[in-house]
Amino acid sequence: MRATYIHGPRDIRFDKVPDPVLVHPTDALVKVIASCVCGSDLWPYRGVVPTSRPHPIGHEFVGIVEEVGRDVQNLRPGQFVIAPFTCCDGTCVNCQNGVQTSCVNGAFWGGKDAQGTAMNGGQGEWVRVPVADGTLVATPEVPDDAMIPSLLTLSDVMGTGHHAALAAGVTKGSTVVVVGDGAVGQCAVLAAARLGADRIIVMSRNPARQALARDFGGTDLVAERGESGSAAVRDLLGGLGADSVLECVGTKESMTQALDAVRPGGRIGYVGAPSGGSELNVRKMFSKNVGVAGGVAPVRAYLEELMIDVLSGELDPGRVFDLQLPLAKVAKAYRAMDERRSIKTLLRP
Amino acid sequence: MRATYIHGPRDIRFDKVPDPVLVHPTDALVKVIASCVCGSDLWPYRGVVPTSRPHPIGHEFVGIVEEVGRDVQNLRPGQFVIAPFTCCDGTCVNCQNGVQTSCVNGAFWGGKDAQGTAMNGGQGEWVRVPVADGTLVATPEVPDDAMIPSLLTLSDVMGTGHHAALAAGVTKGSTVVVVGDGAVGQCAVLAAARLGADRIIVMSRNPARQALARDFGGTDLVAERGESGSAAVRDLLGGLGADSVLECVGTKESMTQALDAVRPGGRIGYVGAPSGGSELNVRKMFSKNVGVAGGVAPVRAYLEELMIDVLSGELDPGRVFDLQLPLAKVAKAYRAMDERRSIKTLLRP
Repeated sequence: MRATYIHGPRDIRFDKVPDPVLVHPTDALVKVIASCVCGSDLWPYRGVVPTSRPHPIGHEFVGIVEEVGRDVQNLRPGQFVIAPFTCCDGTCVNCQNGVQTSCVNGAFWGGKDAQGTAMNGGQGEWVRVPVADGTLVATPEVPDDAMIPSLLTLSDVMGTGHHAALAAGVTKGSTVVVVGDGAVGQCAVLAAARLGADRIIVMSRNPARQALARDFGGTDLVAERGESGSAAVRDLLGGLGADSVLECVGTKESMTQALDAVRPGGRIGYVGAPSGGSELNVRKMFSKNVGVAGGVAPVRAYLEELMIDVLSGELDPGRVFDLQLPLAKVAKAYRAMDERRSIKTLLRP
Repeated sequence: MRATYIHGPRDIRFDKVPDPVLVHPTDALVKVIASCVCGSDLWPYRGVVPTSRPHPIGHEFVGIVEEVGRDVQNLRPGQFVIAPFTCCDGTCVNCQNGVQTSCVNGAFWGGKDAQGTAMNGGQGEWVRVPVADGTLVATPEVPDDAMIPSLLTLSDVMGTGHHAALAAGVTKGSTVVVVGDGAVGQCAVLAAARLGADRIIVMSRNPARQALARDFGGTDLVAERGESGSAAVRDLLGGLGADSVLECVGTKESMTQALDAVRPGGRIGYVGAPSGGSELNVRKMFSKNVGVAGGVAPVRAYLEELMIDVLSGELDPGRVFDLQLPLAKVAKAYRAMDERRSIKTLLRP
């Protein structure tokens, strides 16, 4: 098959590699129908995270089950499935606690599974899925093609935005600030609106992203950053910060912005992968009684619930995809995202 | 009157100073019946926090209302009152949000009130109380003398321990680790037990403090610190960390201990005043999905609720006082606490 490998900074190749086969009896083999590039894929692409040797990349995909191992109980060939961005057995204590990202038998796409077997990345034609019963979620039937983008967001960005909103305690009537207007930030807007937030202030200076955030439920836009951005937030909220701030970037600047935009006693939900330290000012947290929760989102925990809303048409996160390319043009997809010409790029084989 | 002033490191004096008088119409004048020394008073005592000029010290006291200003509605002379460790108007948006420590008209004992008038400290014979209606809580009647130690803990340590437990999400059946065996740590044990925690593991190596923690509801003791301490916690909890960790110290080491002792997806409630940076390892928080909440405890928010349990005899936090001295011997009280000969020292005029 062909699959995407990163060979080094800005060196993305669509390589010919061996076809995956079932290795463990709990594996499934999935033919990829759609995958995409994540903002976090740009860290190694930009060289912020070093690439010591070529390895498969991509961790968001949907597809059709082709084959299952003899111990797989819940899946059968022909089913359409959504893969969360980590695999998990669904049975360990961390999975039972809703923290599937800490599954004792979990693993990250492109790495090694719990038995030490190399895993495929998500940006390829086929994927061997370990602990398939726990990992994959099948739709009731094979969905219309038009539904695929929104279902694909459940692999990562929609679940991640939802995690930020839950971690920040967003509830009916909340005032919310979203820091970050990328795909995760956009999905955080959608999640906050879905949970009943009253005000959703989106910090964005890009007209296309501002427009999407408005469509997703953003009530106000703040283009300023830093202290003037926080001042603009307080102006909108009667002098006070927000109940909940959703930090969807992962830099020191974005975390500082979040801390400055939250009200005393408020909460920050953070899901931006910390890129070189999204440091927390503990003294500021302490004096304002600010809570900070979140982390690498256990999207598997939310997948069924969000899927129901996607399939009913109530939730349309697929609009974060503003560019679609053939999988073979994956290098072009990385360029488009790196240059911020695309919020998120969909790849179809 | 006489009142306690700090003049510099290890220089605590019981000075003769002017008697306080009502200044603002919302003030009350309180004759102090009991006060005490806080662990946080030891930071300036030890020179960790510099003392640039002599100032009144102490922020925990109970007493009898002697006189009230013309705008005070809820208090009358003769009432027994408990003062939280910051004053607050009870009406501003932050107070209404339950974050009285961020009151827009709030102030800290020994500092300056919202109008800029110098305030008394708590370790004195008399205290002028600003925004008295919001700040003070009166008991239904003047309590027995035996009740005074427990009521005095509601000024700070009991409410602070309770804040740690709430911030860490302690609920019925929780597994809890308490880091710190001082007065706040002990009260955190009591608070966790009161909220229905199933296991309460107390990290302590001091026999007297271990015994008190057991009496307060601690189910297990861990004397080790650092990685071996965390390993001991995991051994007690079937290989997993705790649902909730209550960080009641405020050092980098104690926060690291808390992060190592919490389970994936768990929460840390922190109330230890950060002494030179109780740094958070954001990457570790991120990968384990650990939430960190708490801060300077809005004890005023909990005062009525906890007072009911103290007055009914259900809650007995006054046992944290293991030494009582005349107020005039306040310097001796600081020495006893500094040398860890006393968990907490009560001062009576």
